[in-house]
Amino acid sequence: MSSAISPLAPKTSPELPPVDGVRFATAEAGIRYKGRTDVMLALFDAPTAVAGVLTRSKCPSAAVDWCRDRLPGGEARVLVVNSGNANAFTGMKGRKAVELTAKLAAKAAGCRASQVFLASTGVIGEPLDAEKFEGVLDDCASRATPDQWREAAQAIMTTDTFPKVATVTTTLGGVRVTINGMAKGAGMIAPDMATMLSFVATDAPIAAPVLQALLRKATDRTFNCVTIDGDTSTSDTLLLFATGAAAARGAPQITAPGDRRLAPFRKALTTLLRDLAQQVARDGEGARKLITVNVQGAKSERSAHRIAMSIANSPLVKTAVAGEDANWGRVVMAVGKAGEPADRDRLSISFGDIRVACQGARDPAYDEEQTSAYMRGDEIAITVDIGLGRASATVWTCDLTKEYVAINGDYRS
Amino acid sequence: MSSAISPLAPKTSPELPPVDGVRFATAEAGIRYKGRTDVMLALFDAPTAVAGVLTRSKCPSAAVDWCRDRLPGGEARVLVVNSGNANAFTGMKGRKAVELTAKLAAKAAGCRASQVFLASTGVIGEPLDAEKFEGVLDDCASRATPDQWREAAQAIMTTDTFPKVATVTTTLGGVRVTINGMAKGAGMIAPDMATMLSFVATDAPIAAPVLQALLRKATDRTFNCVTIDGDTSTSDTLLLFATGAAAARGAPQITAPGDRRLAPFRKALTTLLRDLAQQVARDGEGARKLITVNVQGAKSERSAHRIAMSIANSPLVKTAVAGEDANWGRVVMAVGKAGEPADRDRLSISFGDIRVACQGARDPAYDEEQTSAYMRGDEIAITVDIGLGRASATVWTCDLTKEYVAINGDYRS
Repeated sequence: MSSAISPLAPKTSPELPPVDGVRFATAEAGIRYKGRTDVMLALFDAPTAVAGVLTRSKCPSAAVDWCRDRLPGGEARVLVVNSGNANAFTGMKGRKAVELTAKLAAKAAGCRASQVFLASTGVIGEPLDAEKFEGVLDDCASRATPDQWREAAQAIMTTDTFPKVATVTTTLGGVRVTINGMAKGAGMIAPDMATMLSFVATDAPIAAPVLQALLRKATDRTFNCVTIDGDTSTSDTLLLFATGAAAARGAPQITAPGDRRLAPFRKALTTLLRDLAQQVARDGEGARKLITVNVQGAKSERSAHRIAMSIANSPLVKTAVAGEDANWGRVVMAVGKAGEPADRDRLSISFGDIRVACQGARDPAYDEEQTSAYMRGDEIAITVDIGLGRASATVWTCDLTKEYVAINGDYRS
Repeated sequence: MSSAISPLAPKTSPELPPVDGVRFATAEAGIRYKGRTDVMLALFDAPTAVAGVLTRSKCPSAAVDWCRDRLPGGEARVLVVNSGNANAFTGMKGRKAVELTAKLAAKAAGCRASQVFLASTGVIGEPLDAEKFEGVLDDCASRATPDQWREAAQAIMTTDTFPKVATVTTTLGGVRVTINGMAKGAGMIAPDMATMLSFVATDAPIAAPVLQALLRKATDRTFNCVTIDGDTSTSDTLLLFATGAAAARGAPQITAPGDRRLAPFRKALTTLLRDLAQQVARDGEGARKLITVNVQGAKSERSAHRIAMSIANSPLVKTAVAGEDANWGRVVMAVGKAGEPADRDRLSISFGDIRVACQGARDPAYDEEQTSAYMRGDEIAITVDIGLGRASATVWTCDLTKEYVAINGDYRS
């Protein structure tokens, strides 16, 4: 783990209010790390609606398989997440480890195994010794309190340099509801329907199928717009829990995806997920600069997204930004390789508000000195206008530094 | 430019015999670099059959556009290549620069502009001052000799640390023919129907349409199997010239792609292109290890190739190899993200001859020490058996080191 906090970490981190119906505890199970927490348990006081989006990797972790099988049930009582070991590519042992963890969690929470949700993050290919959870989960359940969101976010960190939490409040049928969330990065991040790990809970009374529809849509514009290294994880898991506790305060029970009362909630959920997604980009391994890639004027949203991802995943664009070089030539290269409709002679490229290129060549008004000053900042926006249509997309990434290489050349050994 | 030669450079470099009908000269045109050659001219004594594969980038360089328009003519008299400036994303100025270069080259060679082929490599987005070629190309044409293959390969280098040349001899209708080639890398390498720049010439009398068919097929198994950073260049150009001079020694004129006498030539051409392609991987920016990725047991060749490329382009796999870590978990991740048919529980993964994982989990016989010793070598083979079919693919890449980041963070400034 890196010791220094990312220079891009948010300057302030919010206090998270409780979400009625969910409590947390963390512990040191000794999975891999020493002297830090590595397991968190979230306890739902009553059966809670759950939705999730999971990695589309063809080689998912055992915990992802478990969640995929349980999500159609739509009901959760407990969530257990460990760091230090991803329990991925661990074969039959991995499945047994998941089953044992679920059994221990169900016992701790006093629920059925089908109401248990699990996630693991850390090294791939090493067996996870789930017996280490024996006793630990019981103890967590007995200690769980509503005010430990930040501690929970800390327990699931791997190479992250800061815990990622966010909170928003909104209304449902005129009643105030809360959405809290946490996420972890920080490498192997190119979410494909979810990010590495993120857990969100609300007290809004929303049925699981509605929750699922909301979550999938919000994910496409948030977590699926982050990439650190183009490497999609085996463990991507985003779960959204709705305890429904706000019903006691008069919030309506929402059971139809088209319910108009959902509008503010939908917007608030997207805001929260975007906040967490950007925090993941800010804590990309070795990151020194946050890069926002805006693509406009594309033929379709899908095309805009693909071009934006091609730019955000280009090692040459990312190293240029690390070197504080407004190298628009590499942006052109990345547009060109995306395979999407583009016409060199219609492209415009800006860094921040400075247009460096237009109509297939350098902007005549380009000022090297002004641009260099901009590139020394720690938040860089690259905007590309394709000039062919009206669709747009925004994605977030970070620069590629020697530190990324150092972190990933030394991680396992 | 890096000063030290890649530790992966071939220990010996062949002497290239002349290819009858083609002569070279190089010069310092002062495009960008100081104190080194930056332009090479290849002169064909008679109209010469030409075939080519060019980048599929949607934003190709002006020289690529030029070649694409001239290739259907199938006839070359002169080739001009400069380094230091790619003349890509240079708009109308770029087209004018190409036209002026072609005019000067045609004058120097005493041919039509349609018989001129061009390529440029170097920085993108800066105007190329083609007036610098005035006089220089005439002088080159007057000095051209058949023995300057290596000097020509040197003149087209950018961040390359060594010139890349190769030679093979074969027979055509029982008559000995020669194929010589050169290539340059060393970053922005993920060829999509060609690599950055490569030029090959033979004295075999083979008609242009036949040459084109041979070249496209051979490219798919050679240059299209190399990736340094997944970044496809705007300038990828591979040209194959056949002077036909061997006809004077009795070689038959080949005009049909199905001609059986082509068999040895086809094989020799593939061998030569593979040699050059591997040299490109050996000189990848910052490379310290050559990585050969073999994928076996896939459902189709296309699927095998995509999985192999997903592994070879993964920053996490490449940094692990840089760190001498046999991190098969990251190989699993890269297989999983490729989106191709794969089944975690059938995967086998080997580093060299050491099987580290089988049937979805660590190989019980895995020996950390033996594997570590293997990973300290400078040539690493990663073999993945998908276990679903019989198709295979091999691709070449290099590790991702801090040096890559340094080279590309400092390149333009």
